[in-house]
Amino acid sequence: MNNFTYCNPTRIVFGKDAIAGLKDLLPKEARVLMTYGGGSIKNNGVYDQVRSALAGNTVVEFGGIQPNPVYETLMQAVALARKEKVTFLLAVGGGSVLDGTKFIAAAIPFAVGQDPWDILAKNASVPASALRIGTVLTLPATGSETNAFAVISRKSTGEKLAFGNEHVVPRFAILDPATTMSLPTKQTRNGIVDAFVHVMEQYATYPANAPLQDRFAESILQTLVEDGPKLLAQPTDYDLRASLMWCATQALSGLIGCGVPQDWATHMIGHEITAFYGLDHAETLAIVLPSLLAHQKQPKAAKLLQFARRVWGITTADEGQAIDAGIAATRRFFESLGMPTRLAAYHVKPAEAAAKVRDRFTTRNTKLGERGDLTPEQVAQILQAC
Amino acid sequence: MNNFTYCNPTRIVFGKDAIAGLKDLLPKEARVLMTYGGGSIKNNGVYDQVRSALAGNTVVEFGGIQPNPVYETLMQAVALARKEKVTFLLAVGGGSVLDGTKFIAAAIPFAVGQDPWDILAKNASVPASALRIGTVLTLPATGSETNAFAVISRKSTGEKLAFGNEHVVPRFAILDPATTMSLPTKQTRNGIVDAFVHVMEQYATYPANAPLQDRFAESILQTLVEDGPKLLAQPTDYDLRASLMWCATQALSGLIGCGVPQDWATHMIGHEITAFYGLDHAETLAIVLPSLLAHQKQPKAAKLLQFARRVWGITTADEGQAIDAGIAATRRFFESLGMPTRLAAYHVKPAEAAAKVRDRFTTRNTKLGERGDLTPEQVAQILQAC
Repeated sequence: MNNFTYCNPTRIVFGKDAIAGLKDLLPKEARVLMTYGGGSIKNNGVYDQVRSALAGNTVVEFGGIQPNPVYETLMQAVALARKEKVTFLLAVGGGSVLDGTKFIAAAIPFAVGQDPWDILAKNASVPASALRIGTVLTLPATGSETNAFAVISRKSTGEKLAFGNEHVVPRFAILDPATTMSLPTKQTRNGIVDAFVHVMEQYATYPANAPLQDRFAESILQTLVEDGPKLLAQPTDYDLRASLMWCATQALSGLIGCGVPQDWATHMIGHEITAFYGLDHAETLAIVLPSLLAHQKQPKAAKLLQFARRVWGITTADEGQAIDAGIAATRRFFESLGMPTRLAAYHVKPAEAAAKVRDRFTTRNTKLGERGDLTPEQVAQILQAC
Repeated sequence: MNNFTYCNPTRIVFGKDAIAGLKDLLPKEARVLMTYGGGSIKNNGVYDQVRSALAGNTVVEFGGIQPNPVYETLMQAVALARKEKVTFLLAVGGGSVLDGTKFIAAAIPFAVGQDPWDILAKNASVPASALRIGTVLTLPATGSETNAFAVISRKSTGEKLAFGNEHVVPRFAILDPATTMSLPTKQTRNGIVDAFVHVMEQYATYPANAPLQDRFAESILQTLVEDGPKLLAQPTDYDLRASLMWCATQALSGLIGCGVPQDWATHMIGHEITAFYGLDHAETLAIVLPSLLAHQKQPKAAKLLQFARRVWGITTADEGQAIDAGIAATRRFFESLGMPTRLAAYHVKPAEAAAKVRDRFTTRNTKLGERGDLTPEQVAQILQAC
């Protein structure tokens, strides 16, 4: 097992009617900036529940944070928060609202003349005074509710970059599965795939003598495989909603990544596909993962064999065949959820996508994978096969 | 899934040479009370590593905290800490040292004239000003390093009671598996059994639509079953030491207990056996658990069947037989570690133990189990069968 440090201080309040306890989680007399997305929370009752729980607090609202939240919009929220002297940020929505809010929190205390985009582009440190964040999560997928990470896009440059900083870990996360009942099928499906791939990025690498982390990862994968399709068939089943919500949180709480190598190439490639072609994040993951695993069959062989045996129950004696069967089962799983696994489904030409991403990674000198040895040329081969 | 709140803010620093980073984890200019047990840390190098990492801090020492830490000793540490105006407690040792230190932390700010034993006997609240705690763990077993719980004994009354309070959760836990290499076989074995039973208390109840929690629990059990015997055979294998250490922490970090019913009857009965007869905590658990599971076969049937199938791979079609086989496998597992599972091994008469514990639980009106319906009379039946 590799050495590691792990700290996940987010207070999780999980279950039916959890929003009612929101006030007790806020600092006293907090001036709250409530951030949200396109307004679905106004249709499903969450907005009303939150406003009612915040009665007596000063609340400023900032709606309209897009999926793949963009810098240009978020900087408007930064200006508003500064003007209104807010002291706490409450993100109400899914991973995009929350990621955007993490950026807002980090950007507010930036000095005049400094561009907060540097947090992403130049790994600039987030000031220690980043505003505190809490969240009411309404879309299980990204795991952003209990971690330090955020992904932000910039319209003017077509970039999509990630940052991570302890100061932006949410202080609390309210997870009421009932708030996710009305999610469109597409978003539920995205959440299942996103959580699945988060686990794979921390699992499908090489063995590191970390048997409990392996089994925890397999636990999440097995639960998603079992409950994902059931949930799409019974979208208002509370327990299935709860199961997905808890899987998505645990997939990226940091726990399963303790002491093991991590990959994240699928995400890095996927971000570029979103940046170039506008596909949903999860859609890009479902396309890239099977192709990447097939390409990286040799270096990942030991873990892919374990994955095939333990997650998919594949007993074929021949190890190469078992590995192939595990990858094929993964692709079939995504497709069975109604999620395409080929670029063609989105009318994107593999050769074109391969060239674009290769060129960008070459310019940035990006090397990917758990050993940092996946070259832009190999990424192009992976995309070519998508 | 039941509603739950989960927050585990302990910063875990895990791995080789982790003690060297101790200073960075302490508040600046902390006046440290370093607590420890019988002095094994002076033989295995841990004492020197800690003192060297604390160079420059004011450090007061309090050694001699016993296994099953006793109130009378701990109150001496409380007096010392008050006199020396310490501001931080550093527990260096196993679960007993840490549990004792939690009590010390909670007792220090108690007002004159108030008896801190009330924290245990009368559920008195710990003052919010409980001193902060950190730990260097040298014995993986209790999981105390990342939770709010402690068990304390009182010599004068022969009582052994538990308390839990958020204020005494360690701020950090340094877990270096290398520090556990020199543990006597008996303590390693105790740790494996303790962790196993901690999981069972949160798992072997009734189904609650919490599939991920179930699988996480099974993950820990499977890893202990796989690595426990290997570790006893190869006690200086770093990776096996690391595996046990991480299993023991996760067994009682609170995670697997989120949203599920919990039992803890085995622990409550075991505490009485320790109080009356002085057996090690884990020894009592290995005796009580198999007998309790056999007695509670009906109410626990669904989970015991799942346990038999998933943890022990028992495929027998007959469900009753499969459950029996799972319980028998558990008993065999403990015995295979060299851990007796019968009171007779300690020259304790089952009928006498049964009567003593029944009487005490009757006096206290104690009802146990996940449904709170296990009567003192039933506890006596369980012990009679031990």
